[in-house]
Amino acid sequence: MEFTVAQVAGLLNGTFTGDGTRVLRSVARIEDADEGDLAFLSNPTKYAAFAYASKATALLVPSDFEPEQALAPVAIKVADVQKAISTLLGFYQSQLPQPAAGIDTLAFVHPTAKVDPAAHVAPFAYVGQGAVVGANTILEPHSFVGAEVQIGESCLLQSGARVLQGCVLGNRVRLLANAVVGSDGFGHTREEDGAWTRIAHIGNVVIEDDVEIGACTTVDRAVMGSTILRRGVKLDNLVMVAHNVEVGEHTAAAAQVGMAGSARLGKRIMLGGQVGMAGHITLADDVEVGAQSGIKDSVTTAGAKLFGSPAKPFRVWAGEQASLRRVGKLQDQVRALQRQLDALSKQLSPAEEA
Amino acid sequence: MEFTVAQVAGLLNGTFTGDGTRVLRSVARIEDADEGDLAFLSNPTKYAAFAYASKATALLVPSDFEPEQALAPVAIKVADVQKAISTLLGFYQSQLPQPAAGIDTLAFVHPTAKVDPAAHVAPFAYVGQGAVVGANTILEPHSFVGAEVQIGESCLLQSGARVLQGCVLGNRVRLLANAVVGSDGFGHTREEDGAWTRIAHIGNVVIEDDVEIGACTTVDRAVMGSTILRRGVKLDNLVMVAHNVEVGEHTAAAAQVGMAGSARLGKRIMLGGQVGMAGHITLADDVEVGAQSGIKDSVTTAGAKLFGSPAKPFRVWAGEQASLRRVGKLQDQVRALQRQLDALSKQLSPAEEA
Amino acid sequence: MEFTVAQVAGLLNGTFTGDGTRVLRSVARIEDADEGDLAFLSNPTKYAAFAYASKATALLVPSDFEPEQALAPVAIKVADVQKAISTLLGFYQSQLPQPAAGIDTLAFVHPTAKVDPAAHVAPFAYVGQGAVVGANTILEPHSFVGAEVQIGESCLLQSGARVLQGCVLGNRVRLLANAVVGSDGFGHTREEDGAWTRIAHIGNVVIEDDVEIGACTTVDRAVMGSTILRRGVKLDNLVMVAHNVEVGEHTAAAAQVGMAGSARLGKRIMLGGQVGMAGHITLADDVEVGAQSGIKDSVTTAGAKLFGSPAKPFRVWAGEQASLRRVGKLQDQVRALQRQLDALSKQLSPAEEA
Repeated sequence: MEFTVAQVAGLLNGTFTGDGTRVLRSVARIEDADEGDLAFLSNPTKYAAFAYASKATALLVPSDFEPEQALAPVAIKVADVQKAISTLLGFYQSQLPQPAAGIDTLAFVHPTAKVDPAAHVAPFAYVGQGAVVGANTILEPHSFVGAEVQIGESCLLQSGARVLQGCVLGNRVRLLANAVVGSDGFGHTREEDGAWTRIAHIGNVVIEDDVEIGACTTVDRAVMGSTILRRGVKLDNLVMVAHNVEVGEHTAAAAQVGMAGSARLGKRIMLGGQVGMAGHITLADDVEVGAQSGIKDSVTTAGAKLFGSPAKPFRVWAGEQASLRRVGKLQDQVRALQRQLDALSKQLSPAEEA
Repeated sequence: MEFTVAQVAGLLNGTFTGDGTRVLRSVARIEDADEGDLAFLSNPTKYAAFAYASKATALLVPSDFEPEQALAPVAIKVADVQKAISTLLGFYQSQLPQPAAGIDTLAFVHPTAKVDPAAHVAPFAYVGQGAVVGANTILEPHSFVGAEVQIGESCLLQSGARVLQGCVLGNRVRLLANAVVGSDGFGHTREEDGAWTRIAHIGNVVIEDDVEIGACTTVDRAVMGSTILRRGVKLDNLVMVAHNVEVGEHTAAAAQVGMAGSARLGKRIMLGGQVGMAGHITLADDVEVGAQSGIKDSVTTAGAKLFGSPAKPFRVWAGEQASLRRVGKLQDQVRALQRQLDALSKQLSPAEEA
Repeated sequence: MEFTVAQVAGLLNGTFTGDGTRVLRSVARIEDADEGDLAFLSNPTKYAAFAYASKATALLVPSDFEPEQALAPVAIKVADVQKAISTLLGFYQSQLPQPAAGIDTLAFVHPTAKVDPAAHVAPFAYVGQGAVVGANTILEPHSFVGAEVQIGESCLLQSGARVLQGCVLGNRVRLLANAVVGSDGFGHTREEDGAWTRIAHIGNVVIEDDVEIGACTTVDRAVMGSTILRRGVKLDNLVMVAHNVEVGEHTAAAAQVGMAGSARLGKRIMLGGQVGMAGHITLADDVEVGAQSGIKDSVTTAGAKLFGSPAKPFRVWAGEQASLRRVGKLQDQVRALQRQLDALSKQLSPAEEA
């Protein structure tokens, strides 16, 4: 893939002075960039030195950046460097060759399944009985679409991603490698001798548009009804979503988060890595939870910021952390008080005796 | 699938008054239920209002429930609503079509493997050299049975579940999607320069009857001997069982639990989500461990309840949590004491000088 | 596989007195060992009793071990029992039959891929466009090698292991079952309404020689440039390595560790199970981190030992744990001081009045 500096500047609504015909072939970090690369400088105060040393062919810079030294790369000025990079990366990827539409001869598609002619079904992909797969959806090798599953348009199931019986995906849903949607929930009744009897899970998982599910993340089906991921939810790798959980729009969970059964999460929540939460709780919109925190109880304050295990408001948590550090000093103070008091008592006692 | 109200009441040993010929097609939660659904009311004190508004065709209620308003659904009275639901869900699922016995032409079965004619081997399932697969066992697409593996009757390997070389499964063992049994243990010797030399793991994993292993859960093989999951063990998703661990009967671990090497767990233990434990420790029977706790040392008291990281008895943990909150107040008290004492000292000092 | 006692002693540079023609068929733990097994006694002070009761055919013992009772097994004396076991297990495994070289007829290999004739490609393995697979590398069933991937010699991709587009593996790299290399990083820009726009990840993952990646572990590709695992890195199961992380030589992470984006880890670091770390931090060489700790900030002291969440030096952490236990006593002391002081005040007040 080759573009000229002028073409890239045009794509990003940027301006430049210099040779617009120079050729760009890839995007790289400023410290790694070489001839043919486009690099970027989002924080000139901190990283301008890299720019002056850079061998990149072109450099994205903020519109107000005025170089104080000679610059080998052509500087392309844009309003928001971060957004421009994101636009550029997206454009770059959109130019990569896409798998051709059609069902590979080494795929298995059940005769009753309906696969849109514009979908791609790779070798060793499996599409079960009665399943529906929409246009431009890509089923990579070893992906699995169970019986009666419905998948919308422009979805991606990476290699080894699995959608089990009866689950429903909207449009533009991305399941990364080895993600699992629709495994049985962890629900059992306990017998008197301590043995567990499995409760059959006849519900499913419903995933709305624009959801992303990370590698080796698991989303269990509901016992009845549906486990639901609303529009725009983003789950990182190795996340656990238990049966009957409902996650609100645009809520994001970092890697290794665990959501226990029937938890109801609001919109735009942000969960740090390895956060856990109890079952049956409710989290208000816009709540933010620090990494490794454990949420025991419902959170009703929208926008609350929580930390710790068990999780508490940030100020409380920070206060407790400080308290931990103060105990030693407090102990010294108490000992000093005791000494002072004993001395005083002693001083008074003889006086009394006298 | 269609059943009459009378048939369902019969199945659950329940009683009803009303139209026993009405037709039920599915089971739903009381708030979602519609015409043709069976719903349930396990806690009338709390949820009776839903019952009066429900459009369900029938409703499971406790035997002592007497409606105070008109009820559209036919009420079926049962002794234990929760158990009745569980029975019903199991019955519902048992009526779903099962995959037919036989080996699909797109499956791979090594000529030396012995697959029972009543087993189902799906497209893209793999059965290795010398492996044995029992009657009514289902190997879903992309499931993997390594060389010399033995699998009993009525087991389920969901799509992408893997049982590696030489491991042994009893009967009615369920491996959910992308579960791994028999990966190499994490054992290395360290060289003087810090490099690691892998220790070959020649042991296996032995899984007894009625064990369930969650999606993306991994059970490592023993270095020698066996990693063992006893009868009735239930592991949720994304759980880690390291080499040479032994887990006792009916012990249950919630999602993302980690058991380090050679840990020995007793019977009927319950581990909350994200619990971790050190290697080579022993846990007594019936121990219960709160979510996110970390068990550093062996627990010898059967039935002990532990919390925290590092884990301690619940009362100790709760006391420490309370202590954290008391430090601020204690600090105020110490300051007040100091002031009081200083005032007293001052009051005395002039007297002495006098 | 059968060996004589004399052969094994020779392999391990050990000495023995007794019947060197006795036949060994397997290796077992001293408490499990039976006729035909080789067992070992690495700690005679603690476990000598097992030795005297053992039915093993031969027993590895430290060179300075002098039995105080009759010993049924032939004792083979070696300088370092642990190393001898490791050598022996490695030898045992090296004698197991290896899959034959060649591409199975049920595998898919893209016509443009270059697979060394000495590699093994199993049924249902997939090798994409332009990929390169080196000599003696084993691709097990359902393993996935994406387009333009490069894999060196003597690597192992267990069943379900996946290496996505453009990633690069050195020699002797082992990916255990269902491991994922090259899933998209978790990077999004946020719109004003809280919605997330995915940032395309055009980088890759580079894995150097002798790296081991556990079952269901995920290593995300870089947004630009590479996520890098240096020579000899060992990752246990269910570990998360985010985009643009760099892990130094011989660093080891136990199960369920999470490394956030752009973290830079030094050499020979050891991370306990379930450790988490913030993004963009740097860890110095030889740092050791206790299980379940959470590293918030960079660690610049080589060899530092950290504990807790947030993590702190071991002594600080241990001091804080002790502090927690001291608060109750401190409270009692403060109450006692208050009483003593009040008594003193009272004693003085009448005097003043007088």
